[in-house]
Amino acid sequence: MLKKLFAPENLLNWLLVFAPIAAVLELMHANPIAIFAASGLAIIPLAGWMGRATEHLSEKLGEGLGGLLNATFGNAAELIIALMALRKGLFDVVKASLTGSIIGNVLLVLGLSVLLGGLKYPRQIFNRTAAMIGSTMLGLSAIALLMPAVFHIIVQGKANAQEQDLSLEIAVVLIVTYVLSLIFTLRTHSHLYTGGIDKKDEQEAIGTHGWSKGRSIGTLLAATALVAVMSEFLVGAVEEASKELGLTQIFVGVIVVAIIGNAAEHSTAVLVALKNKMDLALNIAVGSSMQVALFVAPVLVFASYLFGRPMNLLFTPLEVVAVGVSVAIVTLIAQDGESNWMEGVLLLAVYAILGITFFSLPA
Amino acid sequence: MLKKLFAPENLLNWLLVFAPIAAVLELMHANPIAIFAASGLAIIPLAGWMGRATEHLSEKLGEGLGGLLNATFGNAAELIIALMALRKGLFDVVKASLTGSIIGNVLLVLGLSVLLGGLKYPRQIFNRTAAMIGSTMLGLSAIALLMPAVFHIIVQGKANAQEQDLSLEIAVVLIVTYVLSLIFTLRTHSHLYTGGIDKKDEQEAIGTHGWSKGRSIGTLLAATALVAVMSEFLVGAVEEASKELGLTQIFVGVIVVAIIGNAAEHSTAVLVALKNKMDLALNIAVGSSMQVALFVAPVLVFASYLFGRPMNLLFTPLEVVAVGVSVAIVTLIAQDGESNWMEGVLLLAVYAILGITFFSLPA
Amino acid sequence: MLKKLFAPENLLNWLLVFAPIAAVLELMHANPIAIFAASGLAIIPLAGWMGRATEHLSEKLGEGLGGLLNATFGNAAELIIALMALRKGLFDVVKASLTGSIIGNVLLVLGLSVLLGGLKYPRQIFNRTAAMIGSTMLGLSAIALLMPAVFHIIVQGKANAQEQDLSLEIAVVLIVTYVLSLIFTLRTHSHLYTGGIDKKDEQEAIGTHGWSKGRSIGTLLAATALVAVMSEFLVGAVEEASKELGLTQIFVGVIVVAIIGNAAEHSTAVLVALKNKMDLALNIAVGSSMQVALFVAPVLVFASYLFGRPMNLLFTPLEVVAVGVSVAIVTLIAQDGESNWMEGVLLLAVYAILGITFFSLPA
Repeated sequence: MLKKLFAPENLLNWLLVFAPIAAVLELMHANPIAIFAASGLAIIPLAGWMGRATEHLSEKLGEGLGGLLNATFGNAAELIIALMALRKGLFDVVKASLTGSIIGNVLLVLGLSVLLGGLKYPRQIFNRTAAMIGSTMLGLSAIALLMPAVFHIIVQGKANAQEQDLSLEIAVVLIVTYVLSLIFTLRTHSHLYTGGIDKKDEQEAIGTHGWSKGRSIGTLLAATALVAVMSEFLVGAVEEASKELGLTQIFVGVIVVAIIGNAAEHSTAVLVALKNKMDLALNIAVGSSMQVALFVAPVLVFASYLFGRPMNLLFTPLEVVAVGVSVAIVTLIAQDGESNWMEGVLLLAVYAILGITFFSLPA
Repeated sequence: MLKKLFAPENLLNWLLVFAPIAAVLELMHANPIAIFAASGLAIIPLAGWMGRATEHLSEKLGEGLGGLLNATFGNAAELIIALMALRKGLFDVVKASLTGSIIGNVLLVLGLSVLLGGLKYPRQIFNRTAAMIGSTMLGLSAIALLMPAVFHIIVQGKANAQEQDLSLEIAVVLIVTYVLSLIFTLRTHSHLYTGGIDKKDEQEAIGTHGWSKGRSIGTLLAATALVAVMSEFLVGAVEEASKELGLTQIFVGVIVVAIIGNAAEHSTAVLVALKNKMDLALNIAVGSSMQVALFVAPVLVFASYLFGRPMNLLFTPLEVVAVGVSVAIVTLIAQDGESNWMEGVLLLAVYAILGITFFSLPA
Repeated sequence: MLKKLFAPENLLNWLLVFAPIAAVLELMHANPIAIFAASGLAIIPLAGWMGRATEHLSEKLGEGLGGLLNATFGNAAELIIALMALRKGLFDVVKASLTGSIIGNVLLVLGLSVLLGGLKYPRQIFNRTAAMIGSTMLGLSAIALLMPAVFHIIVQGKANAQEQDLSLEIAVVLIVTYVLSLIFTLRTHSHLYTGGIDKKDEQEAIGTHGWSKGRSIGTLLAATALVAVMSEFLVGAVEEASKELGLTQIFVGVIVVAIIGNAAEHSTAVLVALKNKMDLALNIAVGSSMQVALFVAPVLVFASYLFGRPMNLLFTPLEVVAVGVSVAIVTLIAQDGESNWMEGVLLLAVYAILGITFFSLPA
C-alpha cells in the first residue's frame, strides 16, 4: 500500500512529509516563513485525502445522503483554514481566502483544465444547461458580495449596525439558495449532472475505487484532524510570514492560501479534463467556487457570531471587482457548451492580471 | 356578471372594494398609512382591468394599431402613478418607481413565473432569439441609466446644465429606439413573438375573450380614471406614510409602489407560466421592464419639461447597480432558451438581496 | 486605372485630394481646424490602401506569414496616428484614440453592418464559436483596462511607481495572449475563421484581386509613408483645433480620430454585410477592436519606454465604463449566432449614448 501511496500518479503524497516537519518547526518556534511553507505544503495532500475519503463515503451512503455529504465536505479544507483564521480574528485573511478560492477555481483550476485538455483535444464539449446554472449561481454570488461593498460606499461608514445586519441577512439568502440548489442537483434535476459523467472514470481519476466504509471514515477523520492542526500552524504564521516576505496579507490570502486549499481540486480537474470529461472538470471548478460563495461564506458569518466577534461580508473593492470579472469571463467561456485551449489561455490571462494587481497593492 | 367578477380566478377583484374606502379615507384626512394602503390595494385590480381592456381593444383594432396600443398602454398604471408623483415634484419617488418596475418585473414577476412553472414542468422552453433581443434592450436600458450617474460622479456636481441636457438627449435616444423596436416586434419580425404563443391561451389567461368594442373602451376609460384618482391619493400619502412606517421613500418607491403597479403583470405571467407558455410569460416580464425603461422613463422626462420642473435621469448608485445586476442575471437565465425552477429561485434570491439592501439604507 | 481609382465603388478615393491640401495648409501654418480636417480626410482613403496592400501581400506570402502580416498591420493606421501622438506626449489623445477604436469598431462599424445587412436580409447567421471567442478576448481587454483604473482609485494616487509597473505587466500579459491568439486563429483552429468565408468575396469586397507582389509592396510603403505624414499634421493640430471647436481632446480622440482611423474597416464591413457575409463583417469589427486592445495598446506602452516617457494604461473612468458596456452589449448581440436589423439599432443606440456622454464632459 505504501508503494501505491507514493506511485507516480500520487506524487502529491510526497508532500505529506511536510506534516511532521511543520509540527517540529512550530514546536521549535522556527522562522514563520518556514512554518507557513511547511504547513501549507502539508495541507495539499491532506485536502486531497479528505476529498477522496468523502467521495468514497458518499458512494456507500447512496445518492441522497452521499450527495449531501459530498457537497458539504467538498471544500472542507478551505472551511477549516478559514475557521482557524476567523477564530484569531483575521477577518481580512478569511475574506481574502474566500475571494481567492472563488477566483482561483474558475480561473486557475478551470483555466488549466481547459488549456491542458484543449491541447489534447481540439474541441471539448459539456452540458450547457448545467454549465449555465453554475454560471448563474456564480452571478448570484458576485451580486451578494457586491451589495455590502456598494452599501458601505453609499453610507460612507456611518451605518455599521445596518452593515452587519445586511451581511447576516444576505448570508441567510445565500445558504437558503444553497440548500435549494442541493435539492436541484441531487433530486429534481440530478440527470443534468450525471448524464455525461461516467461514475467509474471519476473514481479512477480521484483513486477511490474499492475502499471499505471503515477505511473511508478513518481516513476522513485522520485527514481532517491533520488539516485542522496544519491550518492552525498556517494561520498562526501568516501575519509574520507575509510581513517578512514583503507581501500583503490580502495577496497571501487571495493567491497563496487559495492555491493551497484548492490544490486537490486542481489535480482532479486537470486529470479529468485530460480524459476529455469536461462536464466533470467544469463541475469541480465551478461547483467548488459556487460552494465557497453560497455555503462556506455564510457558514463563516454564522460561525463568527458563535465566536463572539461577528464578521460581515464587506469585501475590499478589488476583491469585489475580481469576483465580478471572474464570473463574467467564465460565463463567456461556459455558455457555448464547448471549450478549446485558447479559452484556457484567456482564463489564465485574467488570473494573471488579477494576481498582478493584488500583488501591486501596497499594504 | 358580478358573479364572474368575483369568481375564484378573479380573486384580485375583491380588492376593488378598497377604491371607495380610499376615497372616504382621503376625504376624512385619515391616517396617511391607511390612505396609502387602501389606494395601493385598489390600484392592483384596476391596473388589471386597464390591461384587459387594452388587450381587448388592440385585438379589435387589428395587428398594427392594436399592437401599438397594447405596447403603449401596457404600463399605463405605472405611468399614471409616476406622472402624479412627478407633478408633485417627488423626483426620487418617480425614479424609485421606475427602478422598482424594471427590477420587479425581471426578478420578482419572472422569478415567480419560472419557479411556479418549473415546479409543474421540469423543463420549460422559449424562443431564444426573442428572449435575447429582450435582454439586449434591457442591456441598453441599464447603460442609459448608468451614464448619467457616471457623468455625475465624474463632474462631481459641477456641471448641472450639462447633466440635464445629457438626460434629455439620452431620453431621445431611448424613445427613438423604442419606436424602432415596435416596428421590429409588430412588423418586420412579428413572427418571433407570435410563433410560440397561442392567442387564445393569452386571452383566456387574462380573461378578455368575447368583449365588445364599446365595453372595452368604457372599461379602459373608467379604469384609467379610477387609477388616476387612486394614484393621486397614493402619491399624496407616500411621504407621510413612509415617515410613519420608518421606511425611506426610496424603499417604498422601489419595492412597494412597484409591486402595486405590476401586480396585474404578476398574476398574468404566473398564470401563463403554469400553462407552460413561457414565451408569453417572458414576454410580459421582460417586455414590461423594457417598456418602462425605453418608453415610460423618457416620457416622464419630456413631461417634466411641460410641468416646468425638468427631471433628469440621474439615479442613485444603488438603483443603477440594482438595474445592472438584474439585467445581468436575467440575461444569464434567458440565454439558453429554457428554464427550470432553480432559475426562478436564483431570480428571487437576487430580488431578496436587492430588497434587503434597499431596506437597510438609512434615510 | 485612374478611371477605376475613382469609380463609384471607390468613392473614398476622392478624399485623396486632401493629402496635398493638408500639406499646403501645414506649410502655410493655416488654421488648425483646416489642417486637422484636411489631414483627417486624407487618412481615410490612405488607410484603406494600406489595408488593401497588406491583404494582398498576405495572400502572396501564404497562410502562415501572410496571416501574421495581415493581423499585425490590420490596424497600422491607428498605430501610426497613436505613435505620433505618443511622441508628442499627448497621452490623453493616445488613450482616447484607443478607447474610440475599441468602441467604434464594435458599436459603430458592427452596428452599421448589422443594421444595413439586416435591412436586406431578415436574419443573418454567423459562426457562434468564433464570435464568442472574439467576445471573450474583448472581455479580457475590458478587464485589462479596468484594473489600472480600479487600482488608481484604491491607492488614491499614492503609488505611482506601482501603477506604472502594473500597466507594463498587464501590457505583457496582453501581448502574450495576442501572440497565442494568432497561433489559435492561424494554426490550430483556422477552420473556425475560414469555414464560412469565401476568400474571393473578401477580395472583391476590398478590391485586391489580381495585384502583383511589387505593386502591393509599393502601395503599402507609399500609403504608410503618407499616413505617417498626415498623422503628424493631424496630431500637431489636434490641441489647437479642439480648443477652437470648443471640444475636449478626449471627445476628439474617442469619436473623431477613431472614426478617421477606422473608416476603411467601416466600408469593408458594411460591404460584406450587404453580401450576407456576416462572419467576415463580425471578424473585421470584433477582430479590429481586439487587435487594438491586445496588440496596439501594449505596443504603445512598450514604445513609450523607447521614447523615454513611459505611458501607463490608466484610462479615465468614462473610458473604462464605455469599453465595458460596449463589450457587454456586443456579447449579448453575438452569442446567439444570428443578427437582425434591430440588433444593429441597439449597437448604434449605445454608441449614441456614449458619444453624447463624452461630448457633454466639460474640459
